[in-house]
Order: sequence, then C-alpha cells, then structure tokens
Amino acid sequence: MTNLTIALDAMGGDNAPLSVLEGADLILATYPNVSFLIYGNEDILLPMLNKLSRLKKSSKIIHTDKVIAADEKPSSALRKGKDSSMSLAIEAVKEKRAAAVVSAGNTGALMVTAKLALRTLPDIHRPAIAGLMPTIKNKVVMLDLGANAECTAENLFQFAIMGDAFAKVILDIETPSIGLLNIGSEDVKGNDIVRLASTMLRECQYPLNFIGYIEGNDIAEGTCDVVVCDGFSGNIALKTIEGTAKFCKEVMRSAYNSSIIAKIGYLLSSCAIKKATQKLDHRNYNGAMFLGLNGIVVKSHGSADALGFANAIKIAVELAAHDINERIIKELESSQKLAAE
Amino acid sequence: MTNLTIALDAMGGDNAPLSVLEGADLILATYPNVSFLIYGNEDILLPMLNKLSRLKKSSKIIHTDKVIAADEKPSSALRKGKDSSMSLAIEAVKEKRAAAVVSAGNTGALMVTAKLALRTLPDIHRPAIAGLMPTIKNKVVMLDLGANAECTAENLFQFAIMGDAFAKVILDIETPSIGLLNIGSEDVKGNDIVRLASTMLRECQYPLNFIGYIEGNDIAEGTCDVVVCDGFSGNIALKTIEGTAKFCKEVMRSAYNSSIIAKIGYLLSSCAIKKATQKLDHRNYNGAMFLGLNGIVVKSHGSADALGFANAIKIAVELAAHDINERIIKELESSQKLAAE
Repeated sequence: MTNLTIALDAMGGDNAPLSVLEGADLILATYPNVSFLIYGNEDILLPMLNKLSRLKKSSKIIHTDKVIAADEKPSSALRKGKDSSMSLAIEAVKEKRAAAVVSAGNTGALMVTAKLALRTLPDIHRPAIAGLMPTIKNKVVMLDLGANAECTAENLFQFAIMGDAFAKVILDIETPSIGLLNIGSEDVKGNDIVRLASTMLRECQYPLNFIGYIEGNDIAEGTCDVVVCDGFSGNIALKTIEGTAKFCKEVMRSAYNSSIIAKIGYLLSSCAIKKATQKLDHRNYNGAMFLGLNGIVVKSHGSADALGFANAIKIAVELAAHDINERIIKELESSQKLAAE
Repeated sequence: MTNLTIALDAMGGDNAPLSVLEGADLILATYPNVSFLIYGNEDILLPMLNKLSRLKKSSKIIHTDKVIAADEKPSSALRKGKDSSMSLAIEAVKEKRAAAVVSAGNTGALMVTAKLALRTLPDIHRPAIAGLMPTIKNKVVMLDLGANAECTAENLFQFAIMGDAFAKVILDIETPSIGLLNIGSEDVKGNDIVRLASTMLRECQYPLNFIGYIEGNDIAEGTCDVVVCDGFSGNIALKTIEGTAKFCKEVMRSAYNSSIIAKIGYLLSSCAIKKATQKLDHRNYNGAMFLGLNGIVVKSHGSADALGFANAIKIAVELAAHDINERIIKELESSQKLAAE
C-alpha cells in the first residue's frame, strides 16, 4: 500500500481524545505506511501522544481549542465551528492534504460541515450514510442509515451504485448482491418510490447484481450483500436491530442468573459463547461512511473505544487506498452512458 | 362474560383446518361462554370436529368448498371469493351473527374483503394492523404493521387513538404511553408527516399519554406501551425484530454446538433458558387486529399451530367483550369535540 495521510478529529466522541490517539496507534501495526494529521487541543494531546511513540513518529498535531459539542445543532456548528477540530480535519481532505477524515463527533454537524466543504460527487444528488452489519452469513452493507429521511427513486438507485462500490472495496466481493428494502416480495408491494427504484435497478444496463425486494428479516439473514433503503426506514431498522440484540442478551442474562445450576451451565459454555458473539462485537462494525461526497468522510460511533476507533480508521484507509470515489463516479457514468445508448 | 359468537375461517393457514379447530377447542377451557360459527368444507371438518367433543357442543359448521389460496392476489380473491370460507366468516360479522372473525388465511385478501364488507368506522380514514410484541419490560402494541405503505399525519394520529383503545383492552393499562416512531428524539428529526403527527398528538386535548418520538431500539426496550408508525416502517421494524431474534438464536446454537463442554453447559442451563424464552414464544403474540373497521377482524399468522390460533381467538374475544370499536369511536369523538371547542 502506498503512503496515505488520514485526518483525525481528535476531540469528537465520548472517549476522545484518548480513544482517537490509541486507535490511530493501534492501526499503525496493520498499516505502517499511514500517517496522521491530528486536529485538536495540543495541550491535551501532546502528553498523550508522548506515551505513544509509534504514533508520534507518524503524526502531526494541528492545534485548535475549538470543539463542536455532541449536542450542538448542525446549524450552530456551521456558524461558529469554522476553526473546530472537526472542520479543520475536513478542510485537510478538501485541500488534498489528507486522503480521508475520521471523526467520532456530532453526526449532524459532521454531515452538514462535510457536505458544505466537500460538495457531492458529480451527478450524485444526495450523500448517504453506509454502514456494516453482522448477519447469519457474511457482513452486509446498508445504506442510507439516516442522512435522508425522504428519498426519491433516483436517490435509491444512486445508493445502490454507491453501496455496490463500497461492498466491492470493503467486503471484497466481486459482484455484490443488492436488495431493495420493502414490505413484501411481490411487485405490487410498497410505495411508488420503491417500485420505481426497483424498475430502475432491474433495467439498469450496468451489471448490478440486483436481486429485487428484500424484507426486514432478510437484513440479519444475510440474504444480500447490500441493503438499499431510504434513511428513515434504514435508521429504524438499524436501531431496531440494536434494540432486539440488547433484548436477546438481557433474556439470556436473566436466564443464567435464575438458578445456580444455570449459572454453572453458563460458566461451562461461556468460552464458546464469547467466541461466537465476538464476531458481533460492535467495535468490529464501527465506521460509517458518508458516501457520495467529494472526499472520504468516516463517522465513528460517539462511544467508540480505541479498538472501535481503529476500525473506523481501517475503513477510511481501505476506501482511500481503493479510490472508492473514483469507482462510484465510473459506475455511475457507465450506468448513465448505457442508459443513453 | 356474556355469551359471544366468533366466526372462524377454518380453511385459511398452513395448518388449517386442524389448527383452527383445535385452537377453538383449547380456548373453550378459558372462555366457556364462547361459541363458534365454523366456515369451511364440512367433509373435512366434521370428522375432526367429532373428535373434539367440547368444541362440537359449542359450534356450528357452515359448509363451503371455496377457499382463498395463500398466494391469491387480493383482487382475484375479491372477484371469485364471494362464497369462500373467509368471505362468509366476515359476512357473519357484518350481519351481526358473530362478534368477531378470526382467520389465518391470506392477509391481503382478508384486509381487502373485510374493508369492502365492513367499511371503516365513522371518521376513521384508514384501518391499520395492530399487533403485540415482547419487550424487556411489558408487551407493546405496535401499529400499523403493514396495511398502509404511505400515511398522512392524520392517519398516524388516528392510529394513536386506536392503539390507545387497543392497549387499554388487551394490555389492561389505564393510560397507555404512546410513542411515535422516528429517527431521532429531537423536534427537527424525521419528515414533515411525522413532525405534524407529533404536533397533533401533543396538542390533542383528549387525555392521550403521548411521550413523543421514540426510535427503533425503544420498541424492544419497552419505552412505551403503544408504538405508532406508518405501515412501511412498521412492517420493516417487525420483520427486522424477527430476523434479528433468529440471528441471535443461531449464534447461541452454534456456540453450544462448538464443544462438548459448551454442550454440557447448555444442558445445565437449558431449563432456565427455556423458561426465560417462553415469554418470547411467538404463539403468545399471535393475533393481529385490523383496527378501524366496522367489525372485529383478527388475523392469525399463517403458520400458527393450535396454541397460536387459540391466542388469536383470545384477542378477538377480549376485543369483542370490551367493545373495542365503541371505545375507538368515543375516543375519536372526544378528541374531535375538544379540538372544535
């Protein structure tokens, strides 16, 4: 892999800046050619960085004492956030000093600031948030996870193109299967927007592996590699998965705590359970990309620890190394050219 | 409880008619004052009924050899289904010979046929499918689960009124808390429809216990007693819950099967696990009501066994005994009267 520079918003997130610095240090073990531009308060960052010698050699701190608060409204972040750690890190991508930016800060502020600074890719109407999720089979890419509460059929079509390119890079699948989230598998189901998007995807001459409608249960069953949906149902599905998984965990916990015999049973099987649930560790799924912007912007969960943040950096590095945006532009151009012929 | 007659579509569902007859027989243990009008093929039903002496005494078979197939399109069901077991059972409710109808048949056909025969309640614009779900706390009522892929704010407002009445009867809660499903808790989140519905619910003078927006994770966390949503996101959330629960089960199964020690651990804790997961048994949640029609129509899951179907009958009996539709009409009238004042 060639040398890559990643810009980090060191001040965003519940565990920042330590989780950010430790995450960056961790990732250098896998990607020694990566270097970092770290945006944040030097007085806080330097003592931490001095303890991470590997990272210190591969990074540079750019001082700012302005931080976007987690509860700041996107509009206010835009107004007063020009010199914030988040804004400066995005600016580094805009000015090509960094190949990607990673932030665990305020999602709304990050989206609005990045959209304004970087603009959307040519012909892309709306950016979407794409994330990874575990399934019974392999990981699945899902988008949009909440950037667009309302979508047109054209938006959904473009999400499919972007999700296809994302899955090729991150899941390393040659022809990812793409499903359109709906409330039934028959042609007549759903609303006009979903039906029109389905027609567009079916008739698209660019070789997308579109498998048609999928339903909510298909997400966790791993029926396809890419789930395409509007940001309203996508966000609801994402959070419903989180809530249900928490519920299942709680049911098991209460079962194990209900008797001494059950507790002993748990102790015996705990090693196997931990191993099986390890692949569900949310830290391995951390890092959602704002797809469709003229630059790579990866959002880490606000509560990410070092391992989680390292995974978000990994996503950014892989997307940058494989020129995700070039791929999206080419796929979209091909689909348009073929449609025009 | 006074005497009640329930109409049964004996021929709908994967395990019909045996599951229907056995389910009806089961429920008589709890509700001895209930009697049944059983619609279906007498040649098949009679030999089965002869083995269920309790049910035989409290029921009457009305013969028809017409059945709506599980994969029949609603439009074709309407055209040729006039004398089908489903249609005749609905007709019994229309003509007040039965207090409610229960069917495990084709959902689309049941909705279309029931809507045409029974019409909606006064001032109710659209019927909704309401169902029960387990949560970390108590059961939750959720609607719409898929009848309306698109909804207006007024629709959502009426779903809240109907869900409130439903929860009062079925969950026996005096002032059920009502949440509106959205993609964030802040006022600005979501789309215009959800925001307007929220304003209508907040400003409603009828004493609804509206708690504001909830998110996908709140469903399983039991944050409120009634989840109000459009049929698109509701159906996706419902099926996402099913898929995620299946996924969690699969992860545990593979863990227990991964080593002999883990298997022994499972055997020791299996009794506690079974007890804890029993309250999640989908059969205890079977029976979704088509709320807002001029008659009580309960849809059983197509794959329900006798116990599942019995639960759907139980829902129908309780709703009929507590005059659910009278309650809905009164609640809606009160909210309108108060709004006009």
